[in-house]
Amino acid sequence: MARLVLKFGGTSVADLDRIRNVARHVKREVDAGHDVAVVVSAMAGKTNELVAWCREASPLHDAREYDAVVASGEQVTAGLLAITLQNMGVNARSWLGWQIPLKTDGSHGAARIAEIDGSEIVRRFGEGQVAVVAGFQGIAPDNRISTLGRGGSDTSAVALAAALKADRCDIYTDVDGVYTTDPRIEPKARRMARISFEEMLEMASLGAKVLQVRSVELAMVHKVRTFVRSSFTDPDAPGMGDFDNPPGTLICDEEDIVEQEVVTGIAYARDEAQISLRRVSDRPGVAAAIFGPLAEAGVNVDMIVQNVSESGAYTDMTFTVPAGDLAKAKDVLDKAKAEMQYEVLQSESGLTKVSVIGVGMRSHTGVAATAFKALADRGINIRAITTSEIKISILIDGDYTELAVRTLHAVYGLDKA
Amino acid sequence: MARLVLKFGGTSVADLDRIRNVARHVKREVDAGHDVAVVVSAMAGKTNELVAWCREASPLHDAREYDAVVASGEQVTAGLLAITLQNMGVNARSWLGWQIPLKTDGSHGAARIAEIDGSEIVRRFGEGQVAVVAGFQGIAPDNRISTLGRGGSDTSAVALAAALKADRCDIYTDVDGVYTTDPRIEPKARRMARISFEEMLEMASLGAKVLQVRSVELAMVHKVRTFVRSSFTDPDAPGMGDFDNPPGTLICDEEDIVEQEVVTGIAYARDEAQISLRRVSDRPGVAAAIFGPLAEAGVNVDMIVQNVSESGAYTDMTFTVPAGDLAKAKDVLDKAKAEMQYEVLQSESGLTKVSVIGVGMRSHTGVAATAFKALADRGINIRAITTSEIKISILIDGDYTELAVRTLHAVYGLDKA
Repeated sequence: MARLVLKFGGTSVADLDRIRNVARHVKREVDAGHDVAVVVSAMAGKTNELVAWCREASPLHDAREYDAVVASGEQVTAGLLAITLQNMGVNARSWLGWQIPLKTDGSHGAARIAEIDGSEIVRRFGEGQVAVVAGFQGIAPDNRISTLGRGGSDTSAVALAAALKADRCDIYTDVDGVYTTDPRIEPKARRMARISFEEMLEMASLGAKVLQVRSVELAMVHKVRTFVRSSFTDPDAPGMGDFDNPPGTLICDEEDIVEQEVVTGIAYARDEAQISLRRVSDRPGVAAAIFGPLAEAGVNVDMIVQNVSESGAYTDMTFTVPAGDLAKAKDVLDKAKAEMQYEVLQSESGLTKVSVIGVGMRSHTGVAATAFKALADRGINIRAITTSEIKISILIDGDYTELAVRTLHAVYGLDKA
Repeated sequence: MARLVLKFGGTSVADLDRIRNVARHVKREVDAGHDVAVVVSAMAGKTNELVAWCREASPLHDAREYDAVVASGEQVTAGLLAITLQNMGVNARSWLGWQIPLKTDGSHGAARIAEIDGSEIVRRFGEGQVAVVAGFQGIAPDNRISTLGRGGSDTSAVALAAALKADRCDIYTDVDGVYTTDPRIEPKARRMARISFEEMLEMASLGAKVLQVRSVELAMVHKVRTFVRSSFTDPDAPGMGDFDNPPGTLICDEEDIVEQEVVTGIAYARDEAQISLRRVSDRPGVAAAIFGPLAEAGVNVDMIVQNVSESGAYTDMTFTVPAGDLAKAKDVLDKAKAEMQYEVLQSESGLTKVSVIGVGMRSHTGVAATAFKALADRGINIRAITTSEIKISILIDGDYTELAVRTLHAVYGLDKA
């Protein structure tokens, strides 16, 4: 007997048939004797519809009212799932953010969770009641509904799991786990049994859209054992109710992974653009002069590479931005050319950032060199490189994306079971 | 400067264009210097969709969860109207039932309002803020959302007007007032400037679907001056902002109507069915023996006429039920035939109840006789008659509905300005 938080996203509750399927997953765990809290998103497409209405009502809408409108989507799903569970003979009750209460700060539209009082939900576990919690929402200090920002239901689930001291937080989604790379590009990609929080953070932030970055951060801080698993698998298929080893990927502490691989996954992010400023006068504060105005304009700068010229008087500054931000970034740089003191601006879009991820590379040498050689052997030109303790990111021409991902996946042996 | 509650129904807020139109009505009153609270329904069709989902999830759904799901419709409209008003430069804030709070009893799905704390809304009137209140909902003693039953937004508005001590409650709807009869049947029907609460109750319960019966009862008890007016008229048309005499029908105390007509309106209800039990043994308790089982079966019995036979040993019992309840009623009566001691059951459907309404008939004689003669002159057969202090109801063959309505409308001079 354990305590579980299960989270189901929008595609998993898209209609009443799917909600019934979700209810069967819940019932399976209840029948196994577990305490269960379920966190649900809005039905697929519903949040987008509500957001579009707010925008149509006013492009500059009040975040408090936006929250009141948008949070209604999860409210509907929570009530419908509670009814469906009751219809299957499961004692269930829905909970909205203000009823728990799940208290947030006052940043309406992108609130952060401040405190969750799980005592009443826990008391009702004692009566055999399932809690069906509307995700993505809380109550702000002004006694108004707040929302956690897009994708916030993952965060609700992990935070609730921490507050309830749950043994596990199961994130049910439309994929059955976290893979060594994108299976659409590399069919030999394997589902990982386990991945560390740190690695998952790098995977998530690079566009492996399984889990929201914030929820992984939260799980890491509170050490919430988080499972990524599929809601589309038959709820009663063999092994689905296996408490110790359910089908899916466990995101956990590094020390819980006995045989750590050096490299665990290959991630990629398309639609990057590169900007190079040539012959920038090399003086203290030059980086601030360039990146300050870009940040103010809301341009999301990612990789930054700086080379010193032979003479030492000039430097070349290269960095990447999302392709969608390129025009805005060039505009900012053009206007501030005199101040920034560069001679030439060069830019190119249609690039991809490929990343090799693994906590094991901290204690292994030559990991980066292996990647560079493998790409060179395939004739893939490297435009920029950045590294962190557990990640090597390489900027390449977008046309080579699939080849590079498959090459790196193979060279680190990830395609072998 | 006054205090107003404005209520807008589902067709008035059906999409964002109409919500903008509603906002213009609100702004007109705000610009005139009034304190304004607005009560809104869900967008047309939305409540039906949510109710259908609850039914699909489970035919016997939990009323608490039904309330959580269904109340979301008004939540969306309230937020969107607040955003739209803000976009027009009007200081506005949405209020859900639990935020006000509007406290109800625990009868989820058909709750009654217990108490409304309007103090915070009134405080914000002082800051020039408009309150946009989600209709149809409150909070029950169990700290869960409750709904007031279908059409409950009218009731929300009247109750809020009473709590806020509003000078007037304007019910904006898709008609521009209450008419002397249905204008689709009698083009000469006139909009009444005023109608008493008592008369409106009879009109409403007879199917003049302008206002919910409960809201009229509440307005009568709390003496809330209630205006029925159109939301589809241009908000800035001449006279729309006239505080003393806006276009529409005022529902008010009888004593506020200076020149009371004897008859003020002709109402009708189609699809009535008549059941006659012949040669019922005339003994004490016979009515209870017949109508008790019908009530238990949920059959809504309306007109009841009892004639004593010549001998006094038998009686004939005639009553009406909605045509949709006829089969069920006959089933109940068949099964209990021995107990009820009647000889023959006759029934007929396709009937209409036409009613003449007016508080003036209390002090005038001959009102009923005028109706009977007028109908007889047109060859319309009267099947049953019931009367109350302010109403005469006549059951006729449904084919004569329009003719009867026009005949009665004319005979009491209602078609004259």
